[in-house]
Amino acid sequence: MIAAYQARSQSRVDASLEQLFAAPPTELARLYQAMRYSVINGGKRVRPLLVYAACEALGGKPEQADGAACAVELIHAYSLVHDDLPAMDDDDLRRGQPTTHKAFDEAVAILAGDGLQSLAFEVLADAHCNPHPAELRLSMISCLTHAAGPAGMVGGQAIDLGSVGQQLDQPALETMHRHKTGALIEASVRLGALSSGRADERSLRALHAYAQAIGLAFQVQDDILDVESDTATLGKTQGKDQANHKPTYPALLGLDAAKAYAEELRDQALHALRLFDSAAEPLRELARYIVERRN
Amino acid sequence: MIAAYQARSQSRVDASLEQLFAAPPTELARLYQAMRYSVINGGKRVRPLLVYAACEALGGKPEQADGAACAVELIHAYSLVHDDLPAMDDDDLRRGQPTTHKAFDEAVAILAGDGLQSLAFEVLADAHCNPHPAELRLSMISCLTHAAGPAGMVGGQAIDLGSVGQQLDQPALETMHRHKTGALIEASVRLGALSSGRADERSLRALHAYAQAIGLAFQVQDDILDVESDTATLGKTQGKDQANHKPTYPALLGLDAAKAYAEELRDQALHALRLFDSAAEPLRELARYIVERRN
Repeated sequence: MIAAYQARSQSRVDASLEQLFAAPPTELARLYQAMRYSVINGGKRVRPLLVYAACEALGGKPEQADGAACAVELIHAYSLVHDDLPAMDDDDLRRGQPTTHKAFDEAVAILAGDGLQSLAFEVLADAHCNPHPAELRLSMISCLTHAAGPAGMVGGQAIDLGSVGQQLDQPALETMHRHKTGALIEASVRLGALSSGRADERSLRALHAYAQAIGLAFQVQDDILDVESDTATLGKTQGKDQANHKPTYPALLGLDAAKAYAEELRDQALHALRLFDSAAEPLRELARYIVERRN
Repeated sequence: MIAAYQARSQSRVDASLEQLFAAPPTELARLYQAMRYSVINGGKRVRPLLVYAACEALGGKPEQADGAACAVELIHAYSLVHDDLPAMDDDDLRRGQPTTHKAFDEAVAILAGDGLQSLAFEVLADAHCNPHPAELRLSMISCLTHAAGPAGMVGGQAIDLGSVGQQLDQPALETMHRHKTGALIEASVRLGALSSGRADERSLRALHAYAQAIGLAFQVQDDILDVESDTATLGKTQGKDQANHKPTYPALLGLDAAKAYAEELRDQALHALRLFDSAAEPLRELARYIVERRN
């Protein structure tokens, strides 16, 4: 069932994203091509799925969440483009395809990433793309700027780069992941909830607890897959984290304990949703999927 | 007189900017240090000056414009950090100091730039930093995302990189500059006008014409200074554009015609302000200063 929901979310958000790159002026063709290449790539669209599912969990309709779904995916896409750069993680392959700086060049990749970040906030500010009252749009922008910026995702990447080859303990590793991937996952859930127009403090708190748990579960499972999966299934270089002496959960806890931890986090996520009705089923399915996925 | 106004604008915006980098958590200390280094650097703060002066031209007070002044400088600072990277303009020196990737490293410079961009929009969205009604804050965010993004500044840098070594004609050169530097200068003036809370369509149109003219004048004069000034006065490597075979106005028009063009643009800017009273004097002074400056 989550596969069907994912496919629907993916096609919704891809349609919105495509519109952003349609018909650029000639002199900007290559930049737009690079931005489009970085975004329209068959990605799983986990974050847009979270936006739609959180919106739906509160009784909202998917069309209310298209702007937020677009915006979180633009931020995610920009972060991948920059993280893959030679000066950062130096990755040649992403989802089985050349990374943006390989398909174009480094300068274009840096600019494409920069442009995607601006676009994310432009979409949220725009009444056509994100048809909500002004106050609500502003709350969404505040949420996403905070999650994407130095106090969130960018900060997480900085901590990650600063910790290569270091022996992190579990709290330090979690601080890194809470910033690097957790912040944007939490923002996706919150933006979805806000998009419904029906979010109250209690539901936002419950959804925040859900998002924190799946955000960490997602990372623990990623680390497990980096050990267990092969490069073809993963669509990126397998064993890269280990080879780079990056701190991982399997390295810290052992592989079995890491798997048990991922399952515990899934259960925490499901527990956080206990007061929600069947409209939250996609969120529940996703929590299960994160721990079961193979790539 | 413009020097005193500039000093006042500079100290206002520097005080606001400093607050953004105060007391980061330990694990983010280096990232915040790099962001602060990139921003607090004795820069002339031309764009914040434009924000304050446009606000004042419509009868607004400087404290209404602090948020916008901060935001445009954050965008400008991020663009310099990324433009200086080895994969882009590869500059080691900026205002006589090592560029951010030299003072820190490339990865930190990329992330610092990314973080500064998020911060700019976070500041505009924040009711404390930018105390205006929600609709007005949204208009300001839309204006700045558009000016900073692929349709503006980022697009301009892409055109610039794509045109190195090429023979551009004057319209193509102006398209590049209108994106690369003009868009943010126009946004600075518009954001200042919006900050006053008193902008109407007619004044916005006049200020837009002013901003277009000084934006181009600024660039023409920059090209002239790259030919005429020495590295110490300029605070960056002199003759760099010529050495890189970058298209410039002196190369295209000849030095004397480039100087005459800068003066014509200044006069256009002054003409655009003809219906404004003495509150627009700082804007007028700035138009004169741009063409007379030596660095």
